Amino acid sequence: MAQDSKKQVEQITDMEADFTQWYTDVCIKAELIDYTSMKGIFVLRPYGYAIWENIQAYMDKKFKETGHVNVAMPMLIPESLLQKEKDHVEGFAPECAWVTHGGSEELEERLCIRPTSETLFCDHWSHIVQSHRDLPLLYNQWCSVLRWEKTSRPFLRHREFLWQEGHTLHATAEEAIEETERMWNVYADVCENLLAMPVVKGYKTDKEKFAGAERTYTLECMMHDKKALQNGTSHYFGDGFAKAFGIAFTDKDNQQKTPFETSWGYSTRTIAGIIMTHGDNRGLVLPPRVAPTQVIIIPVAQHKEGVLEANQKVMDTLKAAGFRVKMDDSDKAPGWKFAEYEMKGVPLRLELGPKDMEKNQCVLVRRDSGEKLFVSLDGIGETVAKLLDDIHDSLYAKALKNLQDNTFPAYSLEEAKKLQEEKGGFIKTMWCGDLECELKMKEEAGMSSRCIPLEQEHLGDVCAICGKSAKHMVYWGVAY
Amino acid sequence: MAQDSKKQVEQITDMEADFTQWYTDVCIKAELIDYTSMKGIFVLRPYGYAIWENIQAYMDKKFKETGHVNVAMPMLIPESLLQKEKDHVEGFAPECAWVTHGGSEELEERLCIRPTSETLFCDHWSHIVQSHRDLPLLYNQWCSVLRWEKTSRPFLRHREFLWQEGHTLHATAEEAIEETERMWNVYADVCENLLAMPVVKGYKTDKEKFAGAERTYTLECMMHDKKALQNGTSHYFGDGFAKAFGIAFTDKDNQQKTPFETSWGYSTRTIAGIIMTHGDNRGLVLPPRVAPTQVIIIPVAQHKEGVLEANQKVMDTLKAAGFRVKMDDSDKAPGWKFAEYEMKGVPLRLELGPKDMEKNQCVLVRRDSGEKLFVSLDGIGETVAKLLDDIHDSLYAKALKNLQDNTFPAYSLEEAKKLQEEKGGFIKTMWCGDLECELKMKEEAGMSSRCIPLEQEHLGDVCAICGKSAKHMVYWGVAY
Repeated sequence: MAQDSKKQVEQITDMEADFTQWYTDVCIKAELIDYTSMKGIFVLRPYGYAIWENIQAYMDKKFKETGHVNVAMPMLIPESLLQKEKDHVEGFAPECAWVTHGGSEELEERLCIRPTSETLFCDHWSHIVQSHRDLPLLYNQWCSVLRWEKTSRPFLRHREFLWQEGHTLHATAEEAIEETERMWNVYADVCENLLAMPVVKGYKTDKEKFAGAERTYTLECMMHDKKALQNGTSHYFGDGFAKAFGIAFTDKDNQQKTPFETSWGYSTRTIAGIIMTHGDNRGLVLPPRVAPTQVIIIPVAQHKEGVLEANQKVMDTLKAAGFRVKMDDSDKAPGWKFAEYEMKGVPLRLELGPKDMEKNQCVLVRRDSGEKLFVSLDGIGETVAKLLDDIHDSLYAKALKNLQDNTFPAYSLEEAKKLQEEKGGFIKTMWCGDLECELKMKEEAGMSSRCIPLEQEHLGDVCAICGKSAKHMVYWGVAY
Repeated sequence: MAQDSKKQVEQITDMEADFTQWYTDVCIKAELIDYTSMKGIFVLRPYGYAIWENIQAYMDKKFKETGHVNVAMPMLIPESLLQKEKDHVEGFAPECAWVTHGGSEELEERLCIRPTSETLFCDHWSHIVQSHRDLPLLYNQWCSVLRWEKTSRPFLRHREFLWQEGHTLHATAEEAIEETERMWNVYADVCENLLAMPVVKGYKTDKEKFAGAERTYTLECMMHDKKALQNGTSHYFGDGFAKAFGIAFTDKDNQQKTPFETSWGYSTRTIAGIIMTHGDNRGLVLPPRVAPTQVIIIPVAQHKEGVLEANQKVMDTLKAAGFRVKMDDSDKAPGWKFAEYEMKGVPLRLELGPKDMEKNQCVLVRRDSGEKLFVSLDGIGETVAKLLDDIHDSLYAKALKNLQDNTFPAYSLEEAKKLQEEKGGFIKTMWCGDLECELKMKEEAGMSSRCIPLEQEHLGDVCAICGKSAKHMVYWGVAY
């Protein structure tokens, strides 16, 4: 372990010098991920997976509270099934991995590994839906999906990644839209209240929306390097999929009708967001509510009488109060330990040695600010609870400041381009709604539309790109 | 829903007349599963998945209590990696589904969808293990695997099925064997204390053990039709895999050594076991601790004043006491409701109407025995707790009686064959340990060796098949 720690605490790349390398260093040295011999396919190591498990637990509870049930659909999709909805297959077929052989036999029809599961849900629903009494169907599944992308980076772009995909079916369009927005709000809650990441809420332009969707709601986060990360999307499909799959129900008025569908997904990509929103030059900084270990206890002079017992007692107290706590009483030097848990982003370090014992106190060190506090062992549970909430709030405030300080209005393509080049961040402009202008912004300023935000501002009457009458205000940015 | 309920309560096939069809009827009509257009690949519907979720929650807690952490390995394995351990590839390659194309490009090396993940874990460990301080590694993952089997049946034999696979690495053989046995005992606990299924504990013969294992520990359960179902296996690999993958560590004595490995798996196949152990001619019978709904409340004369409120109050009380409770106040006729929840195997039905309200009582009906009890609403939580425990114990006792009544000693191949033909069940005989005799038992009596049980009995000195000196007592049976 001494050897391992040494590896971990080797200097990581400075984030201001090379953000990309800093990011990769953190993924590896915080033991979140390992590479495999397959390009774009990674091992999610126990520490990385534990973050995902905490996200899962939080979200699964929210899903169940909002009436959803979990299912398990197949991981494979017959090619003919994938082709049933035209826009959908065009969007996903180029990225599919294809199974062509089972054992030694060639398959009659090739099967793709699911890139997403709309077609499977619709096929199943076409078997079981008959009456308005069968609706709504509020389904979710936790699984991995596969998209054969050309480039790859840890968490940001995997060929295989873990996610949840919710799929729901409703008797009316209104109800389906309400559901789409409900789950979008659940995602916003996850970002803000679990992960301390502020969001810009909006919907995607036609160009950027999900293949087959009528409307895609998105959450856009700003990373430390001012680039955008899309963090959770929720799609309203109208009745397009249901028609393509022949799903129909007998309504209360005894008429045959076509139901309306939604889907919504949130993936391990959000871990990239956590790293790039909160991390620093000592490594990962984890928001306390999602941290696998919230408090790491490091006994000081642990060979001295009573020290380990005193540390154990504090651990028992904190565990009983519901915190995720670990003690490191290994034979590594304290300096190594400090660096290791800083790299891993543990929100609070608790040190307790003979001198502290005399004073009935311990030392608490905040990972986010480095602040060192001497606190009484009496009421340590309350102290830790308050500090963890403070850390969450500080991380959120810092990220919000980054977002606000780096969002700029622009009134022409030239200005937008200049702002992106000189300052980066999100540029907001009025837009006419035409694809042509969207493509021009991409080509000339290197920015894609991030979203048409819910909170519209009136920056003028005309499109910043073409000067025609404006329809919306749009956020533009360079995205991961 | 009236229409749906009608379908559900249509008579299912009599289990004594056609057990196979009865089983399929229950899988479909209890809404556990749906077929897809792909052979051997099923949809696990919300009710079936909820059973699996309860098993997962119970097991995951046990795994974590015994020091294990969860990870996510890739779903794909390069062919060259699968081939590194000779016995393993011979066992699994014939059942692999192969990915040959990514998007429109043919892959340089084909990839199989994991049939099991020993090779992936070993490859990863070869990157991260250096010192004795890195050991033990106690890993688990929840995922689905794919085996391209020729025949298929719901839960019993899927090409894709959900499971957990634990994989661990240890400095010594003793520690690895201890781990293998520890997890075998965890599985036995799941069978007995969660699923009310008695087990025969033993290890597999060389012929029946896992491809690449030195020893496979198994749990064998007896179904209602007296056939055997293997329910959880735990494998000790020695250092074979570690050698094949070049995993080595520096031990305390500064010597380079090869570590020892285990793996252990438990799958949704256990749901087949639940159905075939406890089910009856009215459908599924769920052991209370795993039932998604433990108590279904059916208001009687619900249009009358105060009835719904009184039922709601009971539901709130039971929920607060930690039970999984639902109320069905739909407009279906009570008869339909009764039949529907009987089909779904809900352990307790609670009926409460105006007359009961006057007497401060309700009616409880046990799914297992059909017994009807009039109980006071005072202390309803304690009453329900006791009844659910009683139901668990009754189901276990009934299954144990089935196992004991249908296990017979035999002293010759002829006798074993006759017993299997006339009575079925498990036949126990002495065995010399030779593959030849094992194959002969299969060929002539149609039985495979189920296990060499932990609890050996001395039925004689010689092998029942060849008459040579006996090594063990073996359980034989016809297996799913």
